[in-house]
Amino acid sequence: MASVIVAAACIFLSCSASVAHGRRFVRSSSYDKPCKEMRLYLHDILYDYSNSTANSTSAAAAKPTALATAVPSTGGTFFGQVVVFNDPMTEGRALPPSLEETAVRAQGVYLYNSKEAFNAWFAFSIVFNSTGRRGTLNLMGADIIAEKTRDISVVGGTGDFFMSRGVATLRTDAFEGFTYFRLQMDIKLYECYVV
Amino acid sequence: MASVIVAAACIFLSCSASVAHGRRFVRSSSYDKPCKEMRLYLHDILYDYSNSTANSTSAAAAKPTALATAVPSTGGTFFGQVVVFNDPMTEGRALPPSLEETAVRAQGVYLYNSKEAFNAWFAFSIVFNSTGRRGTLNLMGADIIAEKTRDISVVGGTGDFFMSRGVATLRTDAFEGFTYFRLQMDIKLYECYVV
Amino acid sequence: MASVIVAAACIFLSCSASVAHGRRFVRSSSYDKPCKEMRLYLHDILYDYSNSTANSTSAAAAKPTALATAVPSTGGTFFGQVVVFNDPMTEGRALPPSLEETAVRAQGVYLYNSKEAFNAWFAFSIVFNSTGRRGTLNLMGADIIAEKTRDISVVGGTGDFFMSRGVATLRTDAFEGFTYFRLQMDIKLYECYVV
Repeated sequence: MASVIVAAACIFLSCSASVAHGRRFVRSSSYDKPCKEMRLYLHDILYDYSNSTANSTSAAAAKPTALATAVPSTGGTFFGQVVVFNDPMTEGRALPPSLEETAVRAQGVYLYNSKEAFNAWFAFSIVFNSTGRRGTLNLMGADIIAEKTRDISVVGGTGDFFMSRGVATLRTDAFEGFTYFRLQMDIKLYECYVV
Repeated sequence: MASVIVAAACIFLSCSASVAHGRRFVRSSSYDKPCKEMRLYLHDILYDYSNSTANSTSAAAAKPTALATAVPSTGGTFFGQVVVFNDPMTEGRALPPSLEETAVRAQGVYLYNSKEAFNAWFAFSIVFNSTGRRGTLNLMGADIIAEKTRDISVVGGTGDFFMSRGVATLRTDAFEGFTYFRLQMDIKLYECYVV
Repeated sequence: MASVIVAAACIFLSCSASVAHGRRFVRSSSYDKPCKEMRLYLHDILYDYSNSTANSTSAAAAKPTALATAVPSTGGTFFGQVVVFNDPMTEGRALPPSLEETAVRAQGVYLYNSKEAFNAWFAFSIVFNSTGRRGTLNLMGADIIAEKTRDISVVGGTGDFFMSRGVATLRTDAFEGFTYFRLQMDIKLYECYVV
């Protein structure tokens, strides 16, 4: 009966809904009203941090040597460089006490794809592993670093984020040479299966 | 008329449907009732199998040498290693007679993204090429190897799997050192365009 | 009121719609009637073009040397080769006057994944940056080069292509050894948020 009411309401409220095993499909009725949203910070510690890889959270694929040595051959923008990462994510800006054990991690790959300027492309999963949130969100998209903010797609999800879709807005929140950068991610889901 | 009945039925059965060129959109009404499901096994034969690449179905990107040599610099978990694969998939566990010609193949990339333990991330297509099934499913997600099962997203499809979405549950079914592993994939689609 | 009419109409016209902040969700009612479609040509200039990388629009990941040197170890099909690209896209076949500044670009990665024949896999974003169109489409899928046409998935979008999904049909339109190839992409979106 609840689903009938939901469906009927949706016709008038311009959303759409169906019930799946206790979860109900919801399509947001407005950009400003995502069915779920959160702000997270991604911390990426490059592999040559402090001239050591002890604290690094990312590594260049197949060539784990200092990024600096790549400069001459790529003109300083690392065109062609593929970087694998497993970065802690936090709700505040501060680095977590432990880089390995965090409730939220971003796991995947980014690559530098311009000869003219720093420009990147991302494909990764956000892995949630706490009592409050369990599951993953899967994202991909162009990180046009020259733009103040840039949008990438949330293309799917699992667990608490079962089948979700949406958009994540990226903003460079800190950039410390080749040692560390922090990305602010405003994640807004517009298709959810809510409990 | 059929579509009207389908749409009307969906309001009460908590699914949603529309008709597309003989195909009808169906959103599953329950986790337990995907609109399509299948179990497949992925066979990955690493490039240093039998100290030879004759039978390999995968290759380390840009550095096709023995994985073993990567151990010292990555601490044994291959952090940063990107592997391109073109793996046969089967409905049963047995390796197919021919590794090159199979009706179902997984084509794409996985990478190792942890310094602490074996942990992977996948992005790939399942390519179906038989009289019964033709088309592709596109998947991506975190393969948290430490978990007994882990879910990744089916983010799209083509051909017989036109515009599908869903979840695939991965389980390590066999793991033989650096020579072979077999993944069981339970694929459940929750958004389908059915005939 | 408009949304009610749209929703009511959709029940009979076999599409589904909801209104989001001035945008309305539309699911196509037929393969032949995508909610948005376009034809674009992707121009990929390999990194060893004219024995120089001056005009290249792509680069082998982590090993920016001539592709030719990779031939012996991969049997000529570049199995395992990952290529990062940032390619101009055009509405006509002709190369754009400037390779760097175009209104439409494809940014991402492709890889060669067969030992037997040329076979590729793509994951990338199409970045639109003109007064008429702004935003991105995100795509992934198997590029089975042996097939005359092959379909990959549009898994998401941003900006003018907010939350879009669909299918892109690829066709090799030109192939000049290891120096240049041109792909025709017929992009059809079946889930749109239209203004």
